[in-house]
Amino acid sequence: MVSNIGIIGLGLIGGSLARRLVDRGVNVVAWNHRPHPYAQAEADGIRCVPSLAQLVAAEPDIIVLCNPLKAMPAILGALQPLLDAHPDITLTDVGSVKGMVRQQIEEAGLSEQYVGAHPMAGNEHSGWQAADPHLYDGALWAITVDERTDYVRFAAVAQLICGAIGNRLIVVDDDSHDKAAAMISHMPHAVSTALINELVANPDRNIAAALAAGSWRDMTRVALTDPERTRAMIEEDAVNVEELLRHMAARLTDIADHLHDGNERAIGEFFAAGDPFRAYKAAVNAGAEASRHTMLIPEHGWQQALLESARRGEAIIALNAAGSERTATVVQQPAMR
Amino acid sequence: MVSNIGIIGLGLIGGSLARRLVDRGVNVVAWNHRPHPYAQAEADGIRCVPSLAQLVAAEPDIIVLCNPLKAMPAILGALQPLLDAHPDITLTDVGSVKGMVRQQIEEAGLSEQYVGAHPMAGNEHSGWQAADPHLYDGALWAITVDERTDYVRFAAVAQLICGAIGNRLIVVDDDSHDKAAAMISHMPHAVSTALINELVANPDRNIAAALAAGSWRDMTRVALTDPERTRAMIEEDAVNVEELLRHMAARLTDIADHLHDGNERAIGEFFAAGDPFRAYKAAVNAGAEASRHTMLIPEHGWQQALLESARRGEAIIALNAAGSERTATVVQQPAMR
Repeated sequence: MVSNIGIIGLGLIGGSLARRLVDRGVNVVAWNHRPHPYAQAEADGIRCVPSLAQLVAAEPDIIVLCNPLKAMPAILGALQPLLDAHPDITLTDVGSVKGMVRQQIEEAGLSEQYVGAHPMAGNEHSGWQAADPHLYDGALWAITVDERTDYVRFAAVAQLICGAIGNRLIVVDDDSHDKAAAMISHMPHAVSTALINELVANPDRNIAAALAAGSWRDMTRVALTDPERTRAMIEEDAVNVEELLRHMAARLTDIADHLHDGNERAIGEFFAAGDPFRAYKAAVNAGAEASRHTMLIPEHGWQQALLESARRGEAIIALNAAGSERTATVVQQPAMR
Repeated sequence: MVSNIGIIGLGLIGGSLARRLVDRGVNVVAWNHRPHPYAQAEADGIRCVPSLAQLVAAEPDIIVLCNPLKAMPAILGALQPLLDAHPDITLTDVGSVKGMVRQQIEEAGLSEQYVGAHPMAGNEHSGWQAADPHLYDGALWAITVDERTDYVRFAAVAQLICGAIGNRLIVVDDDSHDKAAAMISHMPHAVSTALINELVANPDRNIAAALAAGSWRDMTRVALTDPERTRAMIEEDAVNVEELLRHMAARLTDIADHLHDGNERAIGEFFAAGDPFRAYKAAVNAGAEASRHTMLIPEHGWQQALLESARRGEAIIALNAAGSERTATVVQQPAMR
């Protein structure tokens, strides 16, 4: 049972998480690098402490790192000697890239206590002032594990997400997570940025901007948010983003060639290739009833079994330890075959 | 004064236009290739006729071609002998590519009576059932002219847009229009399509789709609308789209190279290059007060003078012929310098 949670960082993500947990009856102890949100947070029922030492001394079951990625090395360096004396505490985080965080965790000597996590939650705001427990309504989390991850610690983080927070999750390895995030977020952010760069370089940019409608607005919205934050996100996942940008460049060159040649068959294939995604979205939008079943989690190779479940488009809504068997309750979401 | 308008095609664009004009006290006579919307249209005050001959015989000041582009040659072929006997009628259209339409107009021998137009209005629906006079609320139109365009006919179409319809307009040549439309609509549609194709080709597509959030949804929305309609739009503007897709491929390859090399200076330039567009959007979103002034329209070179006005980010809200001087009332919108 997860009943005491430590939160490091009371920004948008951490502050929203702390407020949601308190609302749902969980004890939360928090530390922020500056104490300015403490008065409001305390009024909301969040116990705020002036040092990481006091956070660890409060003996939370799980500490959730909600600090910015750039602060991670310093915070992990300060945590390591403290956690050494409290080996039962499990450490997790909410970072948007998982390979880099695990590397930092390893460098800090904290691998044994660590399970990665990333909630699909956020908006264009930041900071405690924007914190809102509803930010997590209906959110899906990715939990990231490797072959050394302790199942009991994984189960504690999963119960935090499914039980205490009330969300769904999938379980993946760091590389699958970071490649997927590059595919649906980091690379498209670079493409959106390239679109506005192309407009600015266009001699008739004001005529084009005047004619712009919904398609342009939607495709460039993410290029308008803080470009330095986007840059950091892309550079933290640079290898995966680079590969996908080269794929995209090849696709755009191919369709340009086909338009040049008037190759109707190839043009037709270009416009049909995305049909499995269109069918998937139609199923999602139709509110296709998710079927629910119980999945047995094997003692050995549980990481791979849960990764395969995610690949099938399943999400975990509860983790159970009834009797001697480990099981998960999973829902089958619409999926591309 | 524009008081009688003929509409060919009662789909989303033509039907909405007909209903808006009737609402604003203009007489509208309409023809549709199939009579199924006629009962409702007549009830809305639109006079519907069973043939193009009767539409022309009604002697509207302006006929607006709102038919699909693929039906254009057949309709122009039928109109030509009819309009030959009614040279005072001005012909315009609402097509989303202007170079191709002017070529079809020329091939039909109707150049003298023609002024091009394209309203920035529409949504994901189609057909008379979706027709809505509010579709044109606040819309900007592009009027397209060439060196042979008759000023009086241009002025009639401009008064239709600014007066009868109550919208704003810019005046451009066909090529500037089609290049601008490729920049902010046609090319981005191809990029959005390439994004979903890349996802479908990804072995972990279901994990990526599960992690997708607002940025992915926004950037791929236009790839979900009828791909055959998108294909037609892109092929009608193929030369311009091809060129911009090659520019985009080069931009994506460049930033991939810079990520590979860790070239921080070049990466920084990539994320800063769009700043003029970010500043422009901030000004638009701040509702920057548009200043208004009167522009003198020269007798010779009026086309170029109005094109330069559009390039400065101005839009025409009224065309005046007070005394011997031709003038336009223009508003200065936010613009990129």
